[in-house]
Amino acid sequence: MSGLLKVAILISGRGSNMRALARACAAPDYPAEIVLVLSNRADAAGLDFAREAGLATAIVPHRDFPDRASFDAAMDAEIRKAGAELVCLAGFMRLLDPAFVDAWRDRMLNVHPALLPAFKGLDTHRRALAAGVKIAGCTVHFVRSDMDTGPIVAQAAVPVLPGDTGETLAARILEQEHIIYPMALRLVAEGRVTVEGDRAIVDAAAPDAVLRNPDTGQLANSVAPV
Amino acid sequence: MSGLLKVAILISGRGSNMRALARACAAPDYPAEIVLVLSNRADAAGLDFAREAGLATAIVPHRDFPDRASFDAAMDAEIRKAGAELVCLAGFMRLLDPAFVDAWRDRMLNVHPALLPAFKGLDTHRRALAAGVKIAGCTVHFVRSDMDTGPIVAQAAVPVLPGDTGETLAARILEQEHIIYPMALRLVAEGRVTVEGDRAIVDAAAPDAVLRNPDTGQLANSVAPV
Repeated sequence: MSGLLKVAILISGRGSNMRALARACAAPDYPAEIVLVLSNRADAAGLDFAREAGLATAIVPHRDFPDRASFDAAMDAEIRKAGAELVCLAGFMRLLDPAFVDAWRDRMLNVHPALLPAFKGLDTHRRALAAGVKIAGCTVHFVRSDMDTGPIVAQAAVPVLPGDTGETLAARILEQEHIIYPMALRLVAEGRVTVEGDRAIVDAAAPDAVLRNPDTGQLANSVAPV
Repeated sequence: MSGLLKVAILISGRGSNMRALARACAAPDYPAEIVLVLSNRADAAGLDFAREAGLATAIVPHRDFPDRASFDAAMDAEIRKAGAELVCLAGFMRLLDPAFVDAWRDRMLNVHPALLPAFKGLDTHRRALAAGVKIAGCTVHFVRSDMDTGPIVAQAAVPVLPGDTGETLAARILEQEHIIYPMALRLVAEGRVTVEGDRAIVDAAAPDAVLRNPDTGQLANSVAPV
């Protein structure tokens, strides 16, 4: 027994957050290990990375199943076969069956590119820009059946800069996703996160912060680099 | 003519944000001046501060008026008599008539203790804690008829810390309100803010940031002091 928390990661595409988690898990003192990278698409670019990194992979093509429940049951079987204790969604683009969500209650994390509860759902960056917010961010949370809800483990704030497009804002936020997702997984794996109803209580002595400040360059007057 | 933007501030209580604006306006290079502090309550503690600071004050008791429209018209008359070009709401606890809001469209600012569009309305700190967010904040925005909507000029993010109560979170956010409200007013007074529909575009060359990072002490690993 390694003593490490066994994690399955679900992807649909390039899986950049999966890569960030894999990099974190490669560190000798990190308290989790990846036992499975599962994709619903055989052509997900993230699978190549996972194989090259020596990670176990599985493909469960959603089109092979008549409905969401049977697809999710097949995924669940793969995840349990791999011995996973926690599931991390990383750009997994299928809605999940409530039975699957309930089966992994408080044991399934997701990262969303907005400061929840603001901007749930898709197309968050464009909507944030249209709303004219000056601060955007991302959220790691336990998954509940309602989309993009669930106890929040960590969040990061980034500035919206003059001239930002959906792409530049997405890139700035993604950089923070890659920081807080491994940070949140570490906190969970170390047993420093307790779920109480709709809230995740993070151990006050946790060494890492739930707020990160990006290096924003031109905002040097008021924003200091991490 | 001073060349300074003439500002009326509306308060209902202690007016701590009014005090922050007054402190800013006292600086020799600040581009705005306070020409009126108006309260709907004769016993507002902020009035004493204003008088001691040598500011013009007015009391328009809302109870003296049969309806919101006539009350707002009386306020409007006082504000115009004082020569104000911009209105700043600072803990003003009366809903405003749409005609008054329209008359001061893009010339009336408010500060709200949340990262809008999240947590509009009252009781924001308790609701933010109940939602389990890890990042809270405040927003300075132009006022529209719908409560706590309107083009966002500046926002500040603060961490929610373990053990926070509504009071401790409110105090941490208020500290940032006192920073970004004068900052936002400066940007507006300097002509660096353009309203386009529902968005406020801040001049890219503006020296101050729309994101501020508080000194959070125990989060020193990832949050650097301003």
